[in-house]
Amino acid sequence: MADEVVLLNFWPSPFGMRVRIALAEKGIDYEPREEDLSNKSPLLLKMNPVHKQIPVLIHKGRPVCESLIIVQYIDEVWNQKAPLLPSDPYHRAHARFWADYVDKKIYSTGKLVWGTSGEIQEAAKKELIECFKLLENELGDKTYFGGESFGIVDVALIPFYSWFYALETCGNLCMVKECPRLVAWAKRCMQRESVSKSLPDQYKMYDFLLELRKKFESHS
Amino acid sequence: MADEVVLLNFWPSPFGMRVRIALAEKGIDYEPREEDLSNKSPLLLKMNPVHKQIPVLIHKGRPVCESLIIVQYIDEVWNQKAPLLPSDPYHRAHARFWADYVDKKIYSTGKLVWGTSGEIQEAAKKELIECFKLLENELGDKTYFGGESFGIVDVALIPFYSWFYALETCGNLCMVKECPRLVAWAKRCMQRESVSKSLPDQYKMYDFLLELRKKFESHS
Repeated sequence: MADEVVLLNFWPSPFGMRVRIALAEKGIDYEPREEDLSNKSPLLLKMNPVHKQIPVLIHKGRPVCESLIIVQYIDEVWNQKAPLLPSDPYHRAHARFWADYVDKKIYSTGKLVWGTSGEIQEAAKKELIECFKLLENELGDKTYFGGESFGIVDVALIPFYSWFYALETCGNLCMVKECPRLVAWAKRCMQRESVSKSLPDQYKMYDFLLELRKKFESHS
Repeated sequence: MADEVVLLNFWPSPFGMRVRIALAEKGIDYEPREEDLSNKSPLLLKMNPVHKQIPVLIHKGRPVCESLIIVQYIDEVWNQKAPLLPSDPYHRAHARFWADYVDKKIYSTGKLVWGTSGEIQEAAKKELIECFKLLENELGDKTYFGGESFGIVDVALIPFYSWFYALETCGNLCMVKECPRLVAWAKRCMQRESVSKSLPDQYKMYDFLLELRKKFESHS
């Protein structure tokens, strides 16, 4: 039922993309509501008074916040189809570890690559490539981070594929040269409709991030 | 079996205390191994090559890292006794949200209160008290954050009670005046053996944090 599930979101958010992907994997209909982050809606402020951030999933009138917590909630509530976490506690902990790693590293480091220049950018590029190589190592020869099945680590990481053109252009780097296995994995993920329909076009994202960078620069 | 569960830890770590509390709640015997963080053991570097941090729980030879992930692992593996997460998905998401909030806010803000001075310290004091008041509001009239039963939010937050004397002394503030309900909650938690035997003495912690502050100062 469309009126049961509402997603407060903003299209360029990698965190919002995670929720869209998880909902699509489960085949859940929902009502998307686009937020204007410079003029947040009373509903967003009411539903996430602590962080005042998107994404917020509202299910039967009750809010769930923080993207990885939302993904786990979706997996637990709609547990008949497309499990996103493994059933074994050790494998669950392992998946949570890597999803948490992505959460702690990729957004903040990637943002410095497309959003800064000079020494800060150079250091961030080096760190980001190290992070991606560590993730490639964790991926190994598997189809997905979740093994044969697409899982929470895949959901956590794949939204940043929409940043790749911006990272390459702003950071003067070649992702397929630096991390060929990660690029191949991203392309496999993009073959899933849940992913391809949840990620914006990389050029559109690039334009958006350039605008954001101008705002940073005018404030610094 | 003592040889089944090993905990790599360092006594003043609030994150390590979380794991000790969870293990004690479940009544699990384990072998504690104290790490020297200035000279990390080969075992720690092998078991947590990504972050190289304690705590690490080694269960049947396999490592689990990151304190809140470890607590969830413990809750899932030893699920016959003292549940730390609610069974209902919505309540689970709610508990995860607040445990995550504690994780993101209290350590970093509290460290600025006991570890800095001047304007930075004043801003951190204000922020920390706001965080604690928000947590008091979430606690409400409940016995624990988990309601009648002690849960993951309690496990996440109570280790910082060992910082209270340092926060009061370095920050020149009175916790019981600022946050009376939080102090009452902490005292209730301390009546549990799982907590009281896992937290170091507040004066011992104060001495440790003062030494740490001197190191920061000599590096800045």
